[in-house]
Amino acid sequence: MISLAELQRRIETGDLSPDAALAQSQAAIDAHEKAIGAFVCRSENPRAAGTGPLRGIAVGIKDIIDTADFPTEMGSPIYKNHRPRADAAVVMTLKQAGATIVGKTTTTAFAANDPTATLNPRNHGHTPGGSSSGSAAAVAAGMIPLALGTQTGGSVIRPASFCGIAAIKPSFHLLPKVGVKCFSWMLDTVGLFAAGVADLAQGLAAMTNRPELLSAAAVKVPRIGVVMQEFAGEPESAGAEAVRIAAAAAERAGASVRALKLPEIVAEAWRIHPTIQDFEAHHSFAWEYCENYEAMPPLLRGRLDESRDITPAAYDAARAVAIRARAAVAQVFEDVDILLTLSAPGAAPKGLSSTGDPRYNRLWTLMGNPCVNVPAFIAEGGLPVGVQVIAAYGDDARALAAARFVEEALKRG
Amino acid sequence: MISLAELQRRIETGDLSPDAALAQSQAAIDAHEKAIGAFVCRSENPRAAGTGPLRGIAVGIKDIIDTADFPTEMGSPIYKNHRPRADAAVVMTLKQAGATIVGKTTTTAFAANDPTATLNPRNHGHTPGGSSSGSAAAVAAGMIPLALGTQTGGSVIRPASFCGIAAIKPSFHLLPKVGVKCFSWMLDTVGLFAAGVADLAQGLAAMTNRPELLSAAAVKVPRIGVVMQEFAGEPESAGAEAVRIAAAAAERAGASVRALKLPEIVAEAWRIHPTIQDFEAHHSFAWEYCENYEAMPPLLRGRLDESRDITPAAYDAARAVAIRARAAVAQVFEDVDILLTLSAPGAAPKGLSSTGDPRYNRLWTLMGNPCVNVPAFIAEGGLPVGVQVIAAYGDDARALAAARFVEEALKRG
Repeated sequence: MISLAELQRRIETGDLSPDAALAQSQAAIDAHEKAIGAFVCRSENPRAAGTGPLRGIAVGIKDIIDTADFPTEMGSPIYKNHRPRADAAVVMTLKQAGATIVGKTTTTAFAANDPTATLNPRNHGHTPGGSSSGSAAAVAAGMIPLALGTQTGGSVIRPASFCGIAAIKPSFHLLPKVGVKCFSWMLDTVGLFAAGVADLAQGLAAMTNRPELLSAAAVKVPRIGVVMQEFAGEPESAGAEAVRIAAAAAERAGASVRALKLPEIVAEAWRIHPTIQDFEAHHSFAWEYCENYEAMPPLLRGRLDESRDITPAAYDAARAVAIRARAAVAQVFEDVDILLTLSAPGAAPKGLSSTGDPRYNRLWTLMGNPCVNVPAFIAEGGLPVGVQVIAAYGDDARALAAARFVEEALKRG
Repeated sequence: MISLAELQRRIETGDLSPDAALAQSQAAIDAHEKAIGAFVCRSENPRAAGTGPLRGIAVGIKDIIDTADFPTEMGSPIYKNHRPRADAAVVMTLKQAGATIVGKTTTTAFAANDPTATLNPRNHGHTPGGSSSGSAAAVAAGMIPLALGTQTGGSVIRPASFCGIAAIKPSFHLLPKVGVKCFSWMLDTVGLFAAGVADLAQGLAAMTNRPELLSAAAVKVPRIGVVMQEFAGEPESAGAEAVRIAAAAAERAGASVRALKLPEIVAEAWRIHPTIQDFEAHHSFAWEYCENYEAMPPLLRGRLDESRDITPAAYDAARAVAIRARAAVAQVFEDVDILLTLSAPGAAPKGLSSTGDPRYNRLWTLMGNPCVNVPAFIAEGGLPVGVQVIAAYGDDARALAAARFVEEALKRG
């Protein structure tokens, strides 16, 4: 894989020109894209910027994020040849930091569950996960050092776990969503994929102009609470193994580690996530669903068919639960620096018929906490399994610093 | 003016067909549009739906709200001939309720402060206010019974006050913003304009599928707190007079009325509104500002030029103030049902060089409370001046019921 932080260092020291860094990504895409299918379209003649912390960095953008220079097709024939007038705000933050957008990456239609044809670079017989399938696969295949995705249930953390890369779903509202196709306005969150946690930190700090995100001092030796989210059901053995391995490695590295049970209101928030998601989806996709019913992706359409009768009262009640649960989660972080939990039930499912299950992610999307996926071990078939490092809302610096601690602890074994 | 509720009654009793109701609006537009200039474009062949609570109701949509059937030009040459692929969510809720979109209404460019050429129907020598200029003017001129606008500072309540009509800025999140051009995601709120408060209630209930918004029983005799928002400066005499008249009328009608002073944290929230608005605007308009600087509307461009240096830390601090102020405002509503305050400093300014001052509105946009404008009296020059009725966050039913109480009290004089 291509390390963003390493490229930055080499560019800053003059060891590598921005153009050469970009050319390296272009060559890697040429070498691997045919096998993986991570891109929907590519820039014909990408150029490196001369300034900015991300100069020379090739970035892939999930194809539900508006770009003025590329079509934005949302993974659906309903948006065939759709060309937005403007770049999304996150695309502009990348450009302003000097990054080069080299193409749009595959997305399940409207970032829901209908799979793409993208393959998992670790094992071509398995899904890369979704909905940010192409962004995760492009980074995992070593094609690009940075890619953007979005998460409404588990669409950033889960594919990162399946593909064995780092990813962050930042605190809700840290990255602007202007120009990102909406699924659920209470949930949708833009996230980053990169080779390692330090690479994520560099990317996010440059995009947000928040250098404090680079500070490893945000937490030195974390107090870790391990949560298994029992309310979400049992994990597969590989998922549970990933948490055990990461917790043990962190403890060996000096962290305090203890099992935690989340308050009941938090479990209730997990249960009502679909109420919020699907009620809002009926508004977000009203035009597509009502005017283009036949062309809708079947899994999303089926979900919308089944959730037509959610009442405003049920939605209001679900929102009230979410607000109470956020307060309860905030209290949990008075005793620990981070929570450590599953990124996915297990390794990537076989085949391309499913992008996997977001059941260990959706609570955290609703709570808005920053979540980082850290690859924990390689299961059977060469399939990676990650863990989720979660910090308090707004404390993305601590999430990144603690994830780096866990990442390094795992490397030391 | 055309009363939506009255049209509904006549259609339901069979006294008027939906087609005839729509034709009435079309004829009124033909009669008045040339003088007022409220529309950017119109439907060539609008048709009434046969079902739905808003069948036969002609609606105008502010031209920053996406429509698949009309261009959406944002009041700016940068979006010349721009045609969105999809309808905004609020447009779909109107269509699903049976309403007919008859055209797009004028907006100041990107819903900022650069005026349109639209005239105030009450006095053609004055501004109708902005940024939802065309929506307010079209309803005030009796062309249509319902129009949509948006508010980031005071862009719904202020033009309603200047034009002498009713308007509601509902609780933040009550109406979806999907497909609405973003200025500030923490502030932007879709609102409704109509002839009277009962008309607003019918429109909002139909759009949201929330019949409880029609309940006048939400409050019978309101406990009213009068707030003059001293932190926002002195009003003109006409603005202060409007509040005095409305408070006295409400008291005569049996309401309990007392002066209230808002807590200092709320005044602080008023002060930091521009920090949130302008920091987010730099993201929302990044593409327009960076790639189309010369074509940007001068007042908005100037504001963006001046606010380039707002730091993420200042933005975070402003958001923290807003959260504390919301809690303080919630406490205020433990003792009163509604707050009564200024809708604008005074009557509509002369000429078209300014759309007026949102200084008495912006706090409430940031707080997210439902606000209703009720016309209070007619000042010199035939210019109306309204008052703002504000309820607790989420209690739109009470805001509407209390506004109706105040409206009826004012009619009784």
